[in-house]
Amino acid sequence: MARSIDLNSDLGEGFGPWSMGDDAAMLQIVTSANIACGGHASDPETMFETLLAARENGVVVGAHPGYNDREGFGRRVIPMAPAEIMRLVAAQIGALQGVAALAGTKVGYVKAHGALANLSARDRSVADALIGAVRLIDPALPILAISGTQTEQAARAARQPVFSEVFADRGYLSSGQLVPRGQDGAMIHDAEFAADRLLELLETGHMPVIDGAPIALQADSICVHGDSPGAVAMAAKIRARLEGKGFEIKRFLAL
Amino acid sequence: MARSIDLNSDLGEGFGPWSMGDDAAMLQIVTSANIACGGHASDPETMFETLLAARENGVVVGAHPGYNDREGFGRRVIPMAPAEIMRLVAAQIGALQGVAALAGTKVGYVKAHGALANLSARDRSVADALIGAVRLIDPALPILAISGTQTEQAARAARQPVFSEVFADRGYLSSGQLVPRGQDGAMIHDAEFAADRLLELLETGHMPVIDGAPIALQADSICVHGDSPGAVAMAAKIRARLEGKGFEIKRFLAL
Amino acid sequence: MARSIDLNSDLGEGFGPWSMGDDAAMLQIVTSANIACGGHASDPETMFETLLAARENGVVVGAHPGYNDREGFGRRVIPMAPAEIMRLVAAQIGALQGVAALAGTKVGYVKAHGALANLSARDRSVADALIGAVRLIDPALPILAISGTQTEQAARAARQPVFSEVFADRGYLSSGQLVPRGQDGAMIHDAEFAADRLLELLETGHMPVIDGAPIALQADSICVHGDSPGAVAMAAKIRARLEGKGFEIKRFLAL
Amino acid sequence: MARSIDLNSDLGEGFGPWSMGDDAAMLQIVTSANIACGGHASDPETMFETLLAARENGVVVGAHPGYNDREGFGRRVIPMAPAEIMRLVAAQIGALQGVAALAGTKVGYVKAHGALANLSARDRSVADALIGAVRLIDPALPILAISGTQTEQAARAARQPVFSEVFADRGYLSSGQLVPRGQDGAMIHDAEFAADRLLELLETGHMPVIDGAPIALQADSICVHGDSPGAVAMAAKIRARLEGKGFEIKRFLAL
Repeated sequence: MARSIDLNSDLGEGFGPWSMGDDAAMLQIVTSANIACGGHASDPETMFETLLAARENGVVVGAHPGYNDREGFGRRVIPMAPAEIMRLVAAQIGALQGVAALAGTKVGYVKAHGALANLSARDRSVADALIGAVRLIDPALPILAISGTQTEQAARAARQPVFSEVFADRGYLSSGQLVPRGQDGAMIHDAEFAADRLLELLETGHMPVIDGAPIALQADSICVHGDSPGAVAMAAKIRARLEGKGFEIKRFLAL
Repeated sequence: MARSIDLNSDLGEGFGPWSMGDDAAMLQIVTSANIACGGHASDPETMFETLLAARENGVVVGAHPGYNDREGFGRRVIPMAPAEIMRLVAAQIGALQGVAALAGTKVGYVKAHGALANLSARDRSVADALIGAVRLIDPALPILAISGTQTEQAARAARQPVFSEVFADRGYLSSGQLVPRGQDGAMIHDAEFAADRLLELLETGHMPVIDGAPIALQADSICVHGDSPGAVAMAAKIRARLEGKGFEIKRFLAL
Repeated sequence: MARSIDLNSDLGEGFGPWSMGDDAAMLQIVTSANIACGGHASDPETMFETLLAARENGVVVGAHPGYNDREGFGRRVIPMAPAEIMRLVAAQIGALQGVAALAGTKVGYVKAHGALANLSARDRSVADALIGAVRLIDPALPILAISGTQTEQAARAARQPVFSEVFADRGYLSSGQLVPRGQDGAMIHDAEFAADRLLELLETGHMPVIDGAPIALQADSICVHGDSPGAVAMAAKIRARLEGKGFEIKRFLAL
Repeated sequence: MARSIDLNSDLGEGFGPWSMGDDAAMLQIVTSANIACGGHASDPETMFETLLAARENGVVVGAHPGYNDREGFGRRVIPMAPAEIMRLVAAQIGALQGVAALAGTKVGYVKAHGALANLSARDRSVADALIGAVRLIDPALPILAISGTQTEQAARAARQPVFSEVFADRGYLSSGQLVPRGQDGAMIHDAEFAADRLLELLETGHMPVIDGAPIALQADSICVHGDSPGAVAMAAKIRARLEGKGFEIKRFLAL
């Protein structure tokens, strides 16, 4: 395994007068930014500011489409046919591409948000819709998928470029699934423990799980969160620990 | 002057469960369709259906961005700085481009809608913002501008391709301006009179006005409306009259 | 059984520049109007116009709250906790009450819309949330519920006034449930057949079903639709047939 | 002049997952809360939480209607006829009243927000629309108006109860107008200076201005802001200074 790894985070998730998280701090930590596109969050102004800030920090930008549900922040499944999901996703990727042209940057990849990402992870028809939309927009535009999911498999089957991510702050089961929220071990709040676990994955290719022996997991990127002061501090500490062990924090895509 | 002319109309201006006008009928009449992009009207599903129908009818599609104001249908000026207008327009063009990829078609040009078009027509800073956004997205993407406006001049100054349109159903003043709504002669409801006037323009290059001698006016396209049964019938009659005089109704752009 | 019956229909379901159905025609036919409140459809202007038109026609108005989902027209279940549904419903009823004060009328009852009505019909926790919200706003404000549903039962249990409706154009099962859409007999398109069936219900208190003997069904109102020219004609014919048999079409509430 | 004064602030101005300001801190400082109603900010959940928190803190709640423009936070004038403004305002007040019923509280007054408040302050037709809508909803529902404005005069002319507010952090001109934003003296950032000025007003009935002798100004309430940590601290200091001089901080309305 290469001695380098990407760090990604969800950014640009404000809307109008409202902001979320500390994007400026996170742009010092991550190498890839998943940028909301006007579905679960954001608007043209917020997109522009975020794209510009990412560019100024040398951070790769990805489109982060989600359900068109700001009140629910894209965390609720809105019943839609797969073909409708294709149109939803295409419009959002396109919107971010349009604004990226003004910010002098390009959308480098696509990563689904929230309930859409979770549904795509387990429902192949949704994964195929997501990948199909991206492929029609640009067959060379990579997907950033949760490692071990239907999204990853659908991208491979369609020969769409795909990179895989693991979560810094979520526990894993030996099935490869995340520990469901609400169960013991679902959320990791201790930065040292999170870093230990990620280092084991990077050194061995196997991720520790809560119910058995470590499992093989592809990891091109690690997803960190920045929606609270604690989350930013944890992301910074994880980065420091990985660098301390000689891993280069490096974007999985060229700028 | 060439013996051919384009006809354009605003289409795809429904939203969710709501439709507006008879798009199917208008797609038999026009050669270019200005398609709403989610600002004053439309959503990804409506965009997709309209783009597909346009493609099936061999009609060129243009992005038709407007203020993000569905309740006001883009007919109210929302106070925005020119830089904000750039982002608004870029996000909408991009959204339509994204969905167009799914519909197997391409956005061929851009024409502003409603209050944004009217403000751009008279305010050079707004026109420059509109043209600037289009230019950053694609320096080869043409503008369809109201003939004789700041929009047209801004495009020429920026060397962005531009085509000029005249209105089939609006009266003109010798200043080149439209007769303001509410004044006598502002709206033309008689298809024969509208056709007579357009034929004179096409034959001579000069448009009859209500307050003096005909004026020189560039016309690459004629804008017709389809938002009522009467409007569709008028558009059909105008097309028939132009064809009867030997003018080919032909899109100003190649598909 | 009384020789009178109410007819209700969903009205005021436009939004901004868009309209739906022929409200003017339906206001000649029905005695109660379920008026959208800005969730699945409508806005303050549309509410006001509809409330005024209802008042001018002597039609009782009810609030018709639905999921806050205009793109899906309130026909998709948006995942929400019952307590969230209470707030959703309360805000919409209140909004219509506020505008009704300007139109010189009052909201006489509440009937849920679309997916919210269907979920409330079968899920008691949702029904209790709906009834609970109405009760806190006004313990004397009646519910119009689909006959035989959890909504009706929840209202009775809470001692909230409740009236029951049957559908003119939907087939029934001997279980009291509607024939699911997509199955044979789900939709009734023949006005004479629909009227025959309703007359049998009004004469006997028993509704014909597609899979057995007629079932007892409470009917204070009949829901008719007006969202297509055919639907309006069917509603008019049903009204004429009922009147021809001596039934008075009369609102279930005083104005 | 009474030795008591109300403090009011704009609260509940979050939306969906987003929050704004430190409402919990401000509810310890103010006696009246202007609560957003879904126009420039808020949604049913945010309304409910804010109403409940206000009630728990013994703070009177007012409806704070604004333009239906979340992206612009109600700070842009959306062109609307006065009659349209009536409907806008009525729907928002009604929505908050509906949710207030669930929170076990009542809307005690109405104060317009942002661009709508500013337009109403100087345009009598808008002020009349605002007051007219409130009056039709409830002729006993008080208005909280900026002291010395058309809003205040329109309320008096209509015999609608009205209370007057002054701004803690805005400079005044001898005309009674606020110093326009962007000019020297427009914003007051020093809490001690702000308190000195307010104490002079409360002791003498005359407000210091930047261009002449103090002017007579009616003050039933002082508007303080809480949209930044500095603003909260300033509001707290002002309250302490007023109390130190023996003024009771007391709501202008009974709960």
